[in-house]
Amino acid sequence: MSSSLSHSEKWSLLLLTGASLAVIANSFDGGGAPLVASLAFSTLAFSMTYAFVRWSGPSFVKAGLKGRDMSKLIPKEIPEALGAVAASVYILVLMAFIPFAFYKDIVAATSGGGNRDVVITISEVETGRFLHRFPHSKLSSYQSALNTLQTTTILGMADDILDLRWRHKFFIPAIASLPLLIVYYVDFGVTSVVVPNFLVQYMPNQTRLINLSFLYYLYLSALSIFAPNSINILAGVNGIEVGQALVVAVLLILNSSLYLVPFPGNPVLSNGYATHPHPATDSHLLTLYLLLPFLGVSAALYIHNRYPARVFVGDTYCYVAGMTFAVVAIMAHFSKTLLLLLIPQIVNFVYSTPQLFKIIPCPRHRLPKFNARTGMLEPSVTPWPDDRPPSKLLTTVFFTLEKLHLLQVTVNPKTNRISSTSNLTIINLWLVWRGPMREDQLTRELLIMQSVCGLFGLFVRHTMALLIFSVDNRGQYGQGHASPV
Amino acid sequence: MSSSLSHSEKWSLLLLTGASLAVIANSFDGGGAPLVASLAFSTLAFSMTYAFVRWSGPSFVKAGLKGRDMSKLIPKEIPEALGAVAASVYILVLMAFIPFAFYKDIVAATSGGGNRDVVITISEVETGRFLHRFPHSKLSSYQSALNTLQTTTILGMADDILDLRWRHKFFIPAIASLPLLIVYYVDFGVTSVVVPNFLVQYMPNQTRLINLSFLYYLYLSALSIFAPNSINILAGVNGIEVGQALVVAVLLILNSSLYLVPFPGNPVLSNGYATHPHPATDSHLLTLYLLLPFLGVSAALYIHNRYPARVFVGDTYCYVAGMTFAVVAIMAHFSKTLLLLLIPQIVNFVYSTPQLFKIIPCPRHRLPKFNARTGMLEPSVTPWPDDRPPSKLLTTVFFTLEKLHLLQVTVNPKTNRISSTSNLTIINLWLVWRGPMREDQLTRELLIMQSVCGLFGLFVRHTMALLIFSVDNRGQYGQGHASPV
Repeated sequence: MSSSLSHSEKWSLLLLTGASLAVIANSFDGGGAPLVASLAFSTLAFSMTYAFVRWSGPSFVKAGLKGRDMSKLIPKEIPEALGAVAASVYILVLMAFIPFAFYKDIVAATSGGGNRDVVITISEVETGRFLHRFPHSKLSSYQSALNTLQTTTILGMADDILDLRWRHKFFIPAIASLPLLIVYYVDFGVTSVVVPNFLVQYMPNQTRLINLSFLYYLYLSALSIFAPNSINILAGVNGIEVGQALVVAVLLILNSSLYLVPFPGNPVLSNGYATHPHPATDSHLLTLYLLLPFLGVSAALYIHNRYPARVFVGDTYCYVAGMTFAVVAIMAHFSKTLLLLLIPQIVNFVYSTPQLFKIIPCPRHRLPKFNARTGMLEPSVTPWPDDRPPSKLLTTVFFTLEKLHLLQVTVNPKTNRISSTSNLTIINLWLVWRGPMREDQLTRELLIMQSVCGLFGLFVRHTMALLIFSVDNRGQYGQGHASPV
Repeated sequence: MSSSLSHSEKWSLLLLTGASLAVIANSFDGGGAPLVASLAFSTLAFSMTYAFVRWSGPSFVKAGLKGRDMSKLIPKEIPEALGAVAASVYILVLMAFIPFAFYKDIVAATSGGGNRDVVITISEVETGRFLHRFPHSKLSSYQSALNTLQTTTILGMADDILDLRWRHKFFIPAIASLPLLIVYYVDFGVTSVVVPNFLVQYMPNQTRLINLSFLYYLYLSALSIFAPNSINILAGVNGIEVGQALVVAVLLILNSSLYLVPFPGNPVLSNGYATHPHPATDSHLLTLYLLLPFLGVSAALYIHNRYPARVFVGDTYCYVAGMTFAVVAIMAHFSKTLLLLLIPQIVNFVYSTPQLFKIIPCPRHRLPKFNARTGMLEPSVTPWPDDRPPSKLLTTVFFTLEKLHLLQVTVNPKTNRISSTSNLTIINLWLVWRGPMREDQLTRELLIMQSVCGLFGLFVRHTMALLIFSVDNRGQYGQGHASPV
């Protein structure tokens, strides 16, 4: 595999880069069309990631960051942890985007009318008040998102390089989410949720707001731990890590786009919010600004990681992907929507718990087993040696799960005891259900399953929102956000 | 060398950690004494770095991050790039400090009077105005500092792991300074400097402010490139990288502390600024918040890196150290003061340029040469083989420099031509001046030299400030900041 770009790749990327830069330059001059600029930055991020991932392969191999692809006839070594490159490009692009997203503040600060050439008068500079009058809350949210993603990258790189232990890995996202939660606390600090109407009469003083206080942060922290780790454990097949992140990102972008188109039936509210298509527009715009470049870098990485993989993505990418989702969900207050999109990950996590928490033995790798004779992937198994068979209770559980088609159980005909059970990941389970298949087919089917689950989740979410909408006019404000009743 | 802590180390660190945490908890309860909290966070950072550097040594070696200490009789392999651990602790502590530094905003936001238990009334949550009214500019500056330091860490780690080429390395700090400069641009954007009184008459419209516009950003960017790289090239002797950073940090802390004590002779200004000891107090407090934890992690790292070194610090540490200085200089507007403290680094850089820019050959390493017979360090040299002697011009220059005691020149008695010249670093120059010496002695003398230069620099700066003060009452505002005349 060459580490240089082919002739056509080179020219396509150059063209894409040139076009992106042209759009970016124009959208900056034209008074700022942030969404257009964000799209251009995303295509720029795509071409940068595409080229950098290709170019840096040999350096990664030289530094010992390489792995053997075990699901191939000839398991050759390919560069590992290239997700760090994608994450770095993502972060750099998010930084470069700041003046585009927060352009209005500058205009207002320099002259108040859009003319940026006006020199600030002395008294304004002196007190500093004129410059600081404008809400910086969005900027500081955006920066805290950046900080969280950077911490995730640093700790993810540490994990990829030093190969941390499971108990250390698990808390990486918890630490990385600190900057976001701390700024949420300092900057915003709303931890109250609305009490449903029918419960108000049971509340002390019949309060309509209940302050969850630190419990709310615990919930956000749990979300930040869950999202990255759940993506990290749904892995092991070419393209699956990046693929699932792509699906979730596209669905989140779809969800946020729904808030940007005006709803004709949206009732006009008493305080004049009707001029906006939806009160949560700003939050969802910010979500798009974070997700579009993520889509760009992920797409480029996917091309290198899909079957047959030319690079592995490493833990850094999985952490950054999951954390990106957690960040937008926290910032734009749609944590429950995110969980609906992560249903396969949740199922996989729950299904994995007996192995993750060592209730039954967990081999170091649980990826499907490659059958060199057929070229197909088969479910990998946990062996139960004759001298350490599963307990009576476990045996009953295993046979019940087998009846429910949730486990593959092999019985030793001699001893009549269970000799092996399939490893508890939904990837293996999918192979149990659908039979052995080629690696690319497996990834494709899993990604379709993820898409279908996600679309169903979105459907449920918006149907339910309408149900709540009839009870509480402002339910669309999002969960966890203190909204008026 | 053991990677575990000795009994006394363990108990000392535990005691220090406990004391730090107690102070932190108390300063949070007591309405916020940020400087006290910052000091406690710094001692906490010290103990964390001390323990983590020790513990993670073996993992670094296992991951291939190791180097041979060539200036020892038995050059054994020790862990390399441990500065990344120090940088990570530094960043985490800076994050954890946010609620302490920006405590007042929260109090004001929740109830306006200091009682944090008051539930926010519905209308306030609704509009969001009450929550956003307070200037967030300091928070967003602080976050941009964090972002810059994190980018520096990520790129520094990439350099340590992938061993980037010189032309890539050089621009790492330029990229890393982007978040700071971008936020400076969006959030503050003052690029005007005051025109000295005697020049005003020559200005168009006799303006008193001149807008440097993008040139100002170019200057800031150059500063961010210079500071990290200049520290990175004054290296190669046990303890010198961390040692010089410690000296500069202590001097900067001293400088900023000067602004926190009230000056009895400070004239009362017309706009009531006299209630504050100095108008720049806030900037210098922020400087302390950034430098104190840096001092904590650096001190812990120094103990491991000093002669005989048990770990190497790697490029990450040098970049983060230099960037920390650049960040505070930019945020608190004392870039010229910083340059005064970096005089040895500037001299070393200028002295190095002929080799850095390949005007004369530059070996991969220019660290002093260890003489195994004497146990002393001697200046390392660039050989001039007989078939490639220095040009006539260079020969003249070399002999002139030798006369000025700025170079060691060896002449081949047979051919009467120059056979070698000492490498162009001030470390080698120091050895040319003072003769061969032990490694620990060399570091000590260089650090004393750095301290003396720095103290002299501070003296010059404050003497000159007083001179300007007599011309312009508000000269103390700092350079580059648009200040009234």
